[in-house]
Amino acid sequence: MAANIAIPKGTRDFGPLEMSRRNYIFDTVRAIFSLYGYMPVETPAMENLDTLLGKYGEEGDRLLFRILNSGDYLAKTERDSLKDISSLELSRQVCEKGLKYDLTVPFARFVVQHRNDIVFPFKRYQIQPVWRADRPQKGRYREFFQCDVDVIGSNSIYNEYELIQIIDRVFNSLKINNIVKINNRKILSGIAEVIGEKERLIDITVAIDKIDKIGIEKVNEELQAKGVPGEAIKKLQPILFLEGDYSEKFASLRNILADSATGLKGIEELELLFAYIAESSVKSKVELDLTLARGLNYYTGAIIEVKAADYEIGSICGGGRYDDLTGVFGMKDVSGVGVSFGADRIYDVMLKLDLFPERGGDDLKVLFINFGPSEEKYSIQALSALRDKGIAAEIYPDPVKMKKQMTYANARRIPFVIMAGEEEINSQQFTLKDMNSGEQIKCKLEEMIKRLNKI
Amino acid sequence: MAANIAIPKGTRDFGPLEMSRRNYIFDTVRAIFSLYGYMPVETPAMENLDTLLGKYGEEGDRLLFRILNSGDYLAKTERDSLKDISSLELSRQVCEKGLKYDLTVPFARFVVQHRNDIVFPFKRYQIQPVWRADRPQKGRYREFFQCDVDVIGSNSIYNEYELIQIIDRVFNSLKINNIVKINNRKILSGIAEVIGEKERLIDITVAIDKIDKIGIEKVNEELQAKGVPGEAIKKLQPILFLEGDYSEKFASLRNILADSATGLKGIEELELLFAYIAESSVKSKVELDLTLARGLNYYTGAIIEVKAADYEIGSICGGGRYDDLTGVFGMKDVSGVGVSFGADRIYDVMLKLDLFPERGGDDLKVLFINFGPSEEKYSIQALSALRDKGIAAEIYPDPVKMKKQMTYANARRIPFVIMAGEEEINSQQFTLKDMNSGEQIKCKLEEMIKRLNKI
Repeated sequence: MAANIAIPKGTRDFGPLEMSRRNYIFDTVRAIFSLYGYMPVETPAMENLDTLLGKYGEEGDRLLFRILNSGDYLAKTERDSLKDISSLELSRQVCEKGLKYDLTVPFARFVVQHRNDIVFPFKRYQIQPVWRADRPQKGRYREFFQCDVDVIGSNSIYNEYELIQIIDRVFNSLKINNIVKINNRKILSGIAEVIGEKERLIDITVAIDKIDKIGIEKVNEELQAKGVPGEAIKKLQPILFLEGDYSEKFASLRNILADSATGLKGIEELELLFAYIAESSVKSKVELDLTLARGLNYYTGAIIEVKAADYEIGSICGGGRYDDLTGVFGMKDVSGVGVSFGADRIYDVMLKLDLFPERGGDDLKVLFINFGPSEEKYSIQALSALRDKGIAAEIYPDPVKMKKQMTYANARRIPFVIMAGEEEINSQQFTLKDMNSGEQIKCKLEEMIKRLNKI
Repeated sequence: MAANIAIPKGTRDFGPLEMSRRNYIFDTVRAIFSLYGYMPVETPAMENLDTLLGKYGEEGDRLLFRILNSGDYLAKTERDSLKDISSLELSRQVCEKGLKYDLTVPFARFVVQHRNDIVFPFKRYQIQPVWRADRPQKGRYREFFQCDVDVIGSNSIYNEYELIQIIDRVFNSLKINNIVKINNRKILSGIAEVIGEKERLIDITVAIDKIDKIGIEKVNEELQAKGVPGEAIKKLQPILFLEGDYSEKFASLRNILADSATGLKGIEELELLFAYIAESSVKSKVELDLTLARGLNYYTGAIIEVKAADYEIGSICGGGRYDDLTGVFGMKDVSGVGVSFGADRIYDVMLKLDLFPERGGDDLKVLFINFGPSEEKYSIQALSALRDKGIAAEIYPDPVKMKKQMTYANARRIPFVIMAGEEEINSQQFTLKDMNSGEQIKCKLEEMIKRLNKI
């Protein structure tokens, strides 16, 4: 191959098999989102950089894919100024658009832009790719798919419960054993408050979020390094390792956070959510996890994270409540709550645990063997009849050697092959071969359709 | 609104109503592609510019959206060289990737890259957005969707016939009256040959392609301006206005092109295709149109274009055969034939002609009114039962005023509302209101599910 046929690193092609597996996931979540009253929305791949910049922190800004302006974009540039320009400064001058980094910020822009047409509470889902100029590695891509589901414009904790139900139904449908971890940002605030380190809330949450990965000692070291006093760190320890079921934990917490109005409000919210769950048929294991912070700092209430029980791959779904989604675009006091399903990790889990339906990649049920012009003519009429009945079928386009046609049928794993030569034409029949069993029968068209429809 | 909430020009958001309409089109074509044995494939939004540049002509290169390299991409640049740099030259230096411009070139890259895993003939479809930095105007977007369906690795004219069948089934399913125009590039070559202007084939096809838009006189003027001699133009005239049905046209053509082997081969291919169609149940009007050239010059055999009969909007589907799809990537002698459905124009046609199914944008069938905590508890159990039966349902998340909840139900056009207050709870019943007829009945859960399932 002389020419360059590489694909950009961190991106992937999806062939028929991958497509059918991915669609199995998408179709499942889509059907469940719809069953719960959520409506589909899509936004463009590109957004103005004004919309994206400053929303994901400095690191996020750095990871945005920027799109070069079109035309003679340097026309108005003072060329001498380019001599000492930094890459970042040049990017600012020559790019106005970027590829979306997540679905949340573009959705906030959507809500503000279409606020007069939206009926609140607005329940929407969105399944689209996003792009990040991250270093590609196992399980991390530069183009990957998110499946977001959010309710905008309602403060009711019922919404959090509904999302837990959706999580439960999705992972049960996909047969992924899972653990749902729940926390509340107000409780984290309350804890920072009562240990006397209200200002260091972010440092504290970032540190304790890592407890699963690096252990309590390293977390304490990090807290110390960030300047959290020893006394405060000491006070924090029992809180992170509360014992008992969730109602006992709530009771202990209520004592510990007695002096924090915010903390108590957080407990109240979580108790209501756990009460909803207790009375429901939710099958997933749901846990209160006070170390759960999910890095991101825009959550204001519930924090939710889901892990696969049987395969270690990080979170496969996560989200929470954010009281000011659209404030950054000038629309105040719109509370939202939502979760995002990580389609690529779910895909990896299902592949590892062998959870995809066996046959995939190809809906084709029948191949007619092509024996030449007159046989083709006879077969084409039957082929049309099959398709009219909704049976996916085709005829091999050339009258090549039988062996080649059968090889094709096997490679595509087509379950049935139909042969019609002179003998069949004379008796107005067809030979139907079951490619799995090898069984062959001769029958009329109507009989054949009946058999194919039954299977 | 203080902040900038604009969307990039030429791009669009899709709200629930637009999504359901678009999905109606996508679901229809997808189901039909699958019925004919085609398999789904997707490629990334971005490709290396090496893959894209030089494939769409100079104009196409200009219309590519280029993606700025990540990181400190200027680090190795000699800054002094930036002083006099042109926009185009800078683009070359700072961009390695671009957004895909169509589905065909990335698919050719796909075929070459995965050639060892592909079973030929390879029947694939692809439904994805593409991006062009074109000047946005009515019906022309910078992000738009193509639905491509191609067979790779078979020379048989049967494939062309299958595509005509697919076109016919798609537009019949969507209820769009349509005209399918067919030509063959070899006939165009033959014509250029017999009028003695073989070298000016491209000028001639570009000019006569416009005959519908600008009329024969302007076409002749253009031919003259391009340097085609008067004699040749004179010879061309009767060919463009052949009379009779397609078999009479073929007969005349066979005389006219008697000295061109290429031209005769083109006639043979088209006759075979029309013979297939004549024996089929294709309902679309299929016409031989010798002026059809479709600008693009990579077609080598059949050229296909579809127009809506009842709304003027240009072609809604088009394609043809290209004998060397993958040659540019170093894989020779792979013939393909395919067509691309223009989802956005089809959308516009269907909207104008009122062809979308009436209800759209929302699958939600039932809203439970929320009267407060204890009523909510009673309703939630019924709600779960409805969902378990596959009925899309929700409860209003807050116990706000009844009027507000009914306004929400009306705005979302939810067909049924269920009310359960003290009285219903006491009698273990529910009040089911049909929002269209206004009719209200009181019944038990099982009865309610039966009724909702029937509708």
